[in-house]
Amino acid sequence: MRPSKREADEMRAVSFERGVSKHAEGSCLVRFGDTHVLCTASLEERVPGWLRNSGQGWVTAEYGMLPRSTGDRMRREASSGKQGGRTLEIQRLIGRSLRSVVDLQALGEKQVTVDCDVLQADGGTRTAAITGGFIALSDCLSWMEARQMIVRDKVLKDHVAAISCGIYNGNPVLDLDYAEDSTAQTDANFVMTGKGGIVEIQGTAEGEPFSEGEFASLMGLARKGISRLVELQKLAIS
Amino acid sequence: MRPSKREADEMRAVSFERGVSKHAEGSCLVRFGDTHVLCTASLEERVPGWLRNSGQGWVTAEYGMLPRSTGDRMRREASSGKQGGRTLEIQRLIGRSLRSVVDLQALGEKQVTVDCDVLQADGGTRTAAITGGFIALSDCLSWMEARQMIVRDKVLKDHVAAISCGIYNGNPVLDLDYAEDSTAQTDANFVMTGKGGIVEIQGTAEGEPFSEGEFASLMGLARKGISRLVELQKLAIS
Amino acid sequence: MRPSKREADEMRAVSFERGVSKHAEGSCLVRFGDTHVLCTASLEERVPGWLRNSGQGWVTAEYGMLPRSTGDRMRREASSGKQGGRTLEIQRLIGRSLRSVVDLQALGEKQVTVDCDVLQADGGTRTAAITGGFIALSDCLSWMEARQMIVRDKVLKDHVAAISCGIYNGNPVLDLDYAEDSTAQTDANFVMTGKGGIVEIQGTAEGEPFSEGEFASLMGLARKGISRLVELQKLAIS
Amino acid sequence: MRPSKREADEMRAVSFERGVSKHAEGSCLVRFGDTHVLCTASLEERVPGWLRNSGQGWVTAEYGMLPRSTGDRMRREASSGKQGGRTLEIQRLIGRSLRSVVDLQALGEKQVTVDCDVLQADGGTRTAAITGGFIALSDCLSWMEARQMIVRDKVLKDHVAAISCGIYNGNPVLDLDYAEDSTAQTDANFVMTGKGGIVEIQGTAEGEPFSEGEFASLMGLARKGISRLVELQKLAIS
Amino acid sequence: MRPSKREADEMRAVSFERGVSKHAEGSCLVRFGDTHVLCTASLEERVPGWLRNSGQGWVTAEYGMLPRSTGDRMRREASSGKQGGRTLEIQRLIGRSLRSVVDLQALGEKQVTVDCDVLQADGGTRTAAITGGFIALSDCLSWMEARQMIVRDKVLKDHVAAISCGIYNGNPVLDLDYAEDSTAQTDANFVMTGKGGIVEIQGTAEGEPFSEGEFASLMGLARKGISRLVELQKLAIS
Amino acid sequence: MRPSKREADEMRAVSFERGVSKHAEGSCLVRFGDTHVLCTASLEERVPGWLRNSGQGWVTAEYGMLPRSTGDRMRREASSGKQGGRTLEIQRLIGRSLRSVVDLQALGEKQVTVDCDVLQADGGTRTAAITGGFIALSDCLSWMEARQMIVRDKVLKDHVAAISCGIYNGNPVLDLDYAEDSTAQTDANFVMTGKGGIVEIQGTAEGEPFSEGEFASLMGLARKGISRLVELQKLAIS
Repeated sequence: MRPSKREADEMRAVSFERGVSKHAEGSCLVRFGDTHVLCTASLEERVPGWLRNSGQGWVTAEYGMLPRSTGDRMRREASSGKQGGRTLEIQRLIGRSLRSVVDLQALGEKQVTVDCDVLQADGGTRTAAITGGFIALSDCLSWMEARQMIVRDKVLKDHVAAISCGIYNGNPVLDLDYAEDSTAQTDANFVMTGKGGIVEIQGTAEGEPFSEGEFASLMGLARKGISRLVELQKLAIS
Repeated sequence: MRPSKREADEMRAVSFERGVSKHAEGSCLVRFGDTHVLCTASLEERVPGWLRNSGQGWVTAEYGMLPRSTGDRMRREASSGKQGGRTLEIQRLIGRSLRSVVDLQALGEKQVTVDCDVLQADGGTRTAAITGGFIALSDCLSWMEARQMIVRDKVLKDHVAAISCGIYNGNPVLDLDYAEDSTAQTDANFVMTGKGGIVEIQGTAEGEPFSEGEFASLMGLARKGISRLVELQKLAIS
Repeated sequence: MRPSKREADEMRAVSFERGVSKHAEGSCLVRFGDTHVLCTASLEERVPGWLRNSGQGWVTAEYGMLPRSTGDRMRREASSGKQGGRTLEIQRLIGRSLRSVVDLQALGEKQVTVDCDVLQADGGTRTAAITGGFIALSDCLSWMEARQMIVRDKVLKDHVAAISCGIYNGNPVLDLDYAEDSTAQTDANFVMTGKGGIVEIQGTAEGEPFSEGEFASLMGLARKGISRLVELQKLAIS
Repeated sequence: MRPSKREADEMRAVSFERGVSKHAEGSCLVRFGDTHVLCTASLEERVPGWLRNSGQGWVTAEYGMLPRSTGDRMRREASSGKQGGRTLEIQRLIGRSLRSVVDLQALGEKQVTVDCDVLQADGGTRTAAITGGFIALSDCLSWMEARQMIVRDKVLKDHVAAISCGIYNGNPVLDLDYAEDSTAQTDANFVMTGKGGIVEIQGTAEGEPFSEGEFASLMGLARKGISRLVELQKLAIS
Repeated sequence: MRPSKREADEMRAVSFERGVSKHAEGSCLVRFGDTHVLCTASLEERVPGWLRNSGQGWVTAEYGMLPRSTGDRMRREASSGKQGGRTLEIQRLIGRSLRSVVDLQALGEKQVTVDCDVLQADGGTRTAAITGGFIALSDCLSWMEARQMIVRDKVLKDHVAAISCGIYNGNPVLDLDYAEDSTAQTDANFVMTGKGGIVEIQGTAEGEPFSEGEFASLMGLARKGISRLVELQKLAIS
Repeated sequence: MRPSKREADEMRAVSFERGVSKHAEGSCLVRFGDTHVLCTASLEERVPGWLRNSGQGWVTAEYGMLPRSTGDRMRREASSGKQGGRTLEIQRLIGRSLRSVVDLQALGEKQVTVDCDVLQADGGTRTAAITGGFIALSDCLSWMEARQMIVRDKVLKDHVAAISCGIYNGNPVLDLDYAEDSTAQTDANFVMTGKGGIVEIQGTAEGEPFSEGEFASLMGLARKGISRLVELQKLAIS
């Protein structure tokens, strides 16, 4: 039995609230249960140095947690003077995931920065950030299309979404919340596209190593969950 | 005529949404029109070094802006490696303002940190942060009282709230929004208590110096606005 | 009775020693009693990025305290790796104050940086820095005029000076020294021009909030003090 | 055909040179072809704060690249003032991987830090670091056993090794070198124990997403490679 | 002919102004011609970690230059976020030099920090800092003796002073000023005690290497200069 | 008797292993006994800002120690966020020493960066780094000559090498190892050219000051040692 009484293959309630930022070209407050992430997509004219005069654009991401998004207050990274390893690791993952469905040539020499700020954390912040960041990005591209800057469907090749799975009390379960995540033996994050292609897999044994069979169960759960997330994304932006 | 069509002494719509954080001992999403600040109050056992074994507590504040809370995306302070001068100045002001109504002896040797994170900015973020931070702090003290840690009314001596005023197009106006703030000749922030005592005054001539008469008009507007904010605070926490 | 036995409206002995730096285009060692601040004005060709090719110049300030300018040795900011919030706050104030009397268009696309380094501190370092920084700036502009770079009187529109006031033992007093500053109930800094216009007001209740009446007394004292400081500035540079 | 003319399931020449450091309790220069990583294991008495007085030990890792270990000289991280995201990500992975085969309770309240410094890079530095770091750690534990500090076989529960795989020119291949890594469509790192348990999986689509079938091929290759690496580790330390 | 018209073995005018700081236990404004360095000695109860409970004390130094102490304004180190290599090198040298004449055991478990801040630079700032820092240190020890904390003559074993020499236009000259220093072929700094012992020698060929004979001339000049500096120190503190 | 049983004028075994880096234009693993330093020379097109469009090149050096190159593990400088004073001091010395034998005009507007990374330390790392760095630099210049970029013998004017000497147990000895260095009364580093010119002298009294006679003995030993090092360099690169 999961602490949340969910079925093994049952995700938390997922919602996307679009247009939450007055200023950003695209924005989305995504909720996976009690995990709430504010995603904004910002269009900028300048691209990283290595792309200057290449005609090609860039999509990047930054990630942060508000100090009291967690059970105990964390030190503010701006105050400690650097972003921690976990933060850098997650924002690199979000950026790679979003770029996997973008045609950077078709975007043209512009940069979209997707900021994912965790307002409240209850496990799965990185998967929520990818899934909600996609909505913000998509809305930013629609904003650009409305101004004849791009053709949105040439830039955005597919959907992308992410979910975590893990082995909790010996059973593979979908979409870990914090209570599960902190005691799971194995924890894996999957990023997949709308067409079912795999973009990223990260699996970690927290205690004992896991087997190929266990990993296959997690991948099966993830595929089901991401398929549902993509449906919800489509509802949200249609 | 103000860009927002407000009267000279008319504040923006103000609202307090309490209990927005699952984790924090007190929390409040405060809105002054399109300025939205998420305030959380976190109780911690440890106090700053100079208070250890003094029997006295501490209230402090931190302030941050999400990168795209503003019209143009700002660089994330965690990524640039330090908090800017404006950030430090504002968080010092919030801390001083909140401490002005707290009996630190009665609090006992504990620290409350009030984090004020700007989700969306449209002028007046520091005054919204003080006014909403008070609600978060008050709720945190109620949380402590419910656990017999303190007597709330002995710790919290009064209300405290803040508002900005300025001279816009030659006329003194209350509660500047961004459109006004960026072109105002003079900009002043006032922090006052529920009983009408002045806690902090900061007035700056952006262009031409201002006169004592002009400053008196601003103070009059501020008194009126803060009096209204305190009423709204009382409604919110009653 | 004030610890220094001064009258309530009596400033400390103020002196300006000009030309103390062999290298700087303008320099002044200003003394407010035992508070000694070395101010240098440096002319530079480059302006901040946002002014490039604007034809407009800039005046900025930096502030620092020598580690043993104070009663207890402070940590050297260069060694701790960052300027503290108080330092940044003060140098921003000095810069704004000096710019309030400069016509940046008439200056042309050049930058003057006024460095204010506290050799010895006894309260009121920021007000001494503004008052002495004006002399250094003025001398730098004379240096430029002597080289036909500007017309000094078109660039420098007025005098600017600053003083602190506070409520000490229940009485409003002018020009707090450290002994008063550290126990004053209320502390306020005023920056005004030679013509009497107000440039900046910063008032803080250290303990109990203060009233409008008390604040009016402080402003009255400040006006008197600054008027005297401007006279002394005129004597110094004539 | 691979650039190196290796078969799809053929690893580069792997060697372990033990005892290369006069000072470290354990050390190993590991070579995967032209990738050379110097691994040292250092025993320290102090453990991280959260383990103090817990009776439990800790194993951690740090990773660095010499500036000219790569084709183009990279900026020295000590000089740029911080470790990049990639560095932090890799050293966290190495630490988790090594801890997966250590009984931290049996280690007792001591810390072993495994430093992995890349002398020359040609792809696969993190997998070489884990595989060679295991040897350094093992030798450090033997050093401790020789001094009756621990029973080595109670602390070290199994072997652990790592290898990368990828899809190069449409074909799954084992142990990517730089020429392959920089153009591979998919890149995956696997960490497994001597008994075949999976400790960590990281798979990334560099261009097009990949399928479950492709991923299964990579896992099969990895299993074969790691099995061979563990044999070589056994030869090295026997 | 030297630019300053000095003889080859002629130092600049040297003066020591003691007691220039109201707060410091010892202080000295030292002038070597136009090079002016403010030295303060601060007594602190805490010693570096490695000396705790050793009964032994420590003497250390910090060095800084005011931004406009030089011909062109330098960036403030507090603002750039770190002390440069030259600064660190010089303050290490000053600390070593002063410690060479102190019996740290006799000092007892206390620390004296000597801050040397260059108000105006014209070559030879490090040698002035050592020579003047000695006076500040000596006065600090007298201050301690007056309070029965130490016996000054047991702590301070000898005098220490420093001077630079160089080969300018092919001739060995004493006490380089900036005009000479910036074009000298060879530049050497010597630190010696009152009894003539050598504490530190640093010689650098700026252009062509130098010979042993040339170096011997520099050492001869230095010996003469330091002997004179020690006489002046004795006059100053007697 | 020296701990290593060496004669007073006997250096440790010195060896140069060239071409140890697959990527660098020049490289050398230099060993002075148990002190092992990996030196690489990297050719870069860009020069420091102040040399742009000057037609002149630059040679610079960076120095680092692997964390466990020493008896006790040191903190990694990349992790502590800055290079320490000793590191900066040494890399400035290496750079100056190498530049003393390079005609920067003949090099042309290019930069060679010599990285010296200490793999294992047993005293004398800076002298080994200079001596081995010369080989790496020389090989880099040969690499450039092979590509008709320069004429090597016009750029490289002479050999340069370095050695430490010290007074150990009252006797002057050559090439201190760590056991001697940590207890020597006086420690001096000498850098000289192949023709016998002196490039740099650094002598420090660790305990008691030293005399001119003692210093002359150290210089005599150094001359002998460096002469031998230059012979070995010639053998290595011929």
